[in-house]
Amino acid sequence: MANIMIGLKRMKEISRKSPSKIVLLIIDGIGGLPHPETGRTELESAKKPSLDQIAKESICGLIDPISPGITPGSAPGHLAIFGYDPIKYNIGRGVLEALGVDLKLEPEDIAARGNFCTIDDKGIITDRRAGRISTEKNAELCRSLNKININGAEVSVVPVKEHRFVLIFRGEGLSPELTDSDPQQVGLSPKKIQALSPGAQRAAEIANEFISQAKRLLRSRVANIPFANMVLMRGFSRLPDIPSLSEVYKLKSAAIAVYPMYRGLARLVGMKVLPTGDSITDQLESLHRYYDDYDFFFIHFKSTDSRGEDGNFKAKVRAIEELDNALPELLILNSDVLIITGDHSTPAVLARHSWHPVPFMLRSRWCFPDSVTGFSERACLEGGLGRFPAVEIMPLAMANALKLDKFGA
Amino acid sequence: MANIMIGLKRMKEISRKSPSKIVLLIIDGIGGLPHPETGRTELESAKKPSLDQIAKESICGLIDPISPGITPGSAPGHLAIFGYDPIKYNIGRGVLEALGVDLKLEPEDIAARGNFCTIDDKGIITDRRAGRISTEKNAELCRSLNKININGAEVSVVPVKEHRFVLIFRGEGLSPELTDSDPQQVGLSPKKIQALSPGAQRAAEIANEFISQAKRLLRSRVANIPFANMVLMRGFSRLPDIPSLSEVYKLKSAAIAVYPMYRGLARLVGMKVLPTGDSITDQLESLHRYYDDYDFFFIHFKSTDSRGEDGNFKAKVRAIEELDNALPELLILNSDVLIITGDHSTPAVLARHSWHPVPFMLRSRWCFPDSVTGFSERACLEGGLGRFPAVEIMPLAMANALKLDKFGA
Repeated sequence: MANIMIGLKRMKEISRKSPSKIVLLIIDGIGGLPHPETGRTELESAKKPSLDQIAKESICGLIDPISPGITPGSAPGHLAIFGYDPIKYNIGRGVLEALGVDLKLEPEDIAARGNFCTIDDKGIITDRRAGRISTEKNAELCRSLNKININGAEVSVVPVKEHRFVLIFRGEGLSPELTDSDPQQVGLSPKKIQALSPGAQRAAEIANEFISQAKRLLRSRVANIPFANMVLMRGFSRLPDIPSLSEVYKLKSAAIAVYPMYRGLARLVGMKVLPTGDSITDQLESLHRYYDDYDFFFIHFKSTDSRGEDGNFKAKVRAIEELDNALPELLILNSDVLIITGDHSTPAVLARHSWHPVPFMLRSRWCFPDSVTGFSERACLEGGLGRFPAVEIMPLAMANALKLDKFGA
Repeated sequence: MANIMIGLKRMKEISRKSPSKIVLLIIDGIGGLPHPETGRTELESAKKPSLDQIAKESICGLIDPISPGITPGSAPGHLAIFGYDPIKYNIGRGVLEALGVDLKLEPEDIAARGNFCTIDDKGIITDRRAGRISTEKNAELCRSLNKININGAEVSVVPVKEHRFVLIFRGEGLSPELTDSDPQQVGLSPKKIQALSPGAQRAAEIANEFISQAKRLLRSRVANIPFANMVLMRGFSRLPDIPSLSEVYKLKSAAIAVYPMYRGLARLVGMKVLPTGDSITDQLESLHRYYDDYDFFFIHFKSTDSRGEDGNFKAKVRAIEELDNALPELLILNSDVLIITGDHSTPAVLARHSWHPVPFMLRSRWCFPDSVTGFSERACLEGGLGRFPAVEIMPLAMANALKLDKFGA
């Protein structure tokens, strides 16, 4: 409700190191909508004794990842929970694509997302995805693009999936303030990349030079994939200048995430990315193994979001039950603060991320539990925290871990 | 609710055109306070089966038009609902007065509100309203003031009601940053108008020249109304530079409002003002007639506010019932998003606008209805949206109409 934010600078002043431990479990896309037949959401349909037990011991609420009505992508959804204004710290498309393949960017690197595409004889785009070529063909094409040599810049091309790749270039005094070459629709020509500020002139030249060399290479059919005869670039960007969790909160933090993008986001805010297997059981094993070494753990559970995006209500319910089933291993640790929430809603009935607020619970010795007895959208609406923006989670976590001094005398 | 605002610039990036339709019904001054005898508010006293039925199918809440404790005028109350920060986009008194008589201002026009007043022989104001002269006499006086000729500026004077008029002047390089001549109390002399910035020097000269010529004309008793012998000017202002709903949300929007000021506010944000008769039935007829041509409709219902300002509790209740009675015609259309709220509260027991939050409901296929079963201040307090600022209504409307892409990847 308040328009007052303490801000990271003040937070830095009042945060302190202490032995207490915070565990943050993000259930990706957990929020849902009622099934038209039963009137119950995914969470309301699942058997989840552990989540409900935690809710009983917690103070609950509903978070708006960004603000009411706004559907967050995964990056702003997570950054907000980690305490960063998701509008201010907006992550560029290129950087996100690089994080998604586990690339470790340097602060000066400029990253862009690339598509292989098809153009006709007149240079008009006929397929923005080059027929979704295989990831193997993509890797082959990237190998030849890596031969591109540009004066004054180091260029590297990394394949992603199917037709997608990441372009990274570094060089002195380059700015990422560039337009896209991708017109985002067929029937048009790729656009010339323009500098959006005077300082980006050189970077624009490099990007255009890369594209023209790539076009030549692809035309020469290096990889014999004639329909992948051009590239489309977008989202030129650089790592945001973001203070780490250790700087702001004096936390030694670690991430246990299976998918590269979430590991990348965690690394971005200074978390150590821990080795883990693929299942939630594996992830909780990692938590046990490293529990003594860190004081803040971010655990990312992905399949609720994937099943929501598939529009598979039942499978999302099962994903919740699978998670719930594993939770006793988490509860054994009895962390000083346990937070369970999601980065956004992904209602199976919408089969996409949505703007709906997300159930939230925080358990600690000092949390003042409310009367909520289950973990769901409707139950959390009655929670003691009400509806609040996700950026306020970190101050709550820190407070409940008794890691914050008072503000002002 | 949120400390984070997505901002109009971002909104422009994520909004998209789609065939879905949004209907926004603003019931002016709808919020009330309990009647001392019954303990029930106007809404709680009215028979309103349609409003209550909509509440059952909606997600409800309470809006703060500006922020808690702040009583809004009609302009900020509406602008906030239309998605504009009502503090940032403050509409000057003069502009508002011009909108209120349906004047179509040009961007360079400077408008000011004028009063005819009475001064004594020493130039001291004895009546700020010149005995509330009739609107007819006012028109007569304005006709003679329109003969005023000032070098380098085009001046026009338009009568409003009783003692009030609008002065508009245009000319090259004029700035509205001027002080008032109206000291806002009797016993003082009218003040000389001062430039508030160096660039406003010429405009100050023009305004003072207008006043001195007006004084001379009025003294010469052109209209033989001796007690209207001077003018008081205030609120020099210009149209705010406000991005239109079509720019920000890609909406083709229309307004169905009876009173000029609301039509003017709608025009200000780029709505097309549709022809309509005076009653709510007429207004809903217009809605039907133009329903296919627009994707956003603002309908303004006035008499709840008027009866509230009269302090007439029963008449306000009747106004609500009259509206409710007409609503089935609105519901037939089954718009993708239907929003019903008010621009502020006007409790009959206060007989004025007030700072109390205003009942709100939003119905859409994706709204996740809450447990609220009636439309009133107390019922909406239990709503799923909680209490939130009115500027968040447009993002919610757009989201529920599936007209927003996600923010960030």
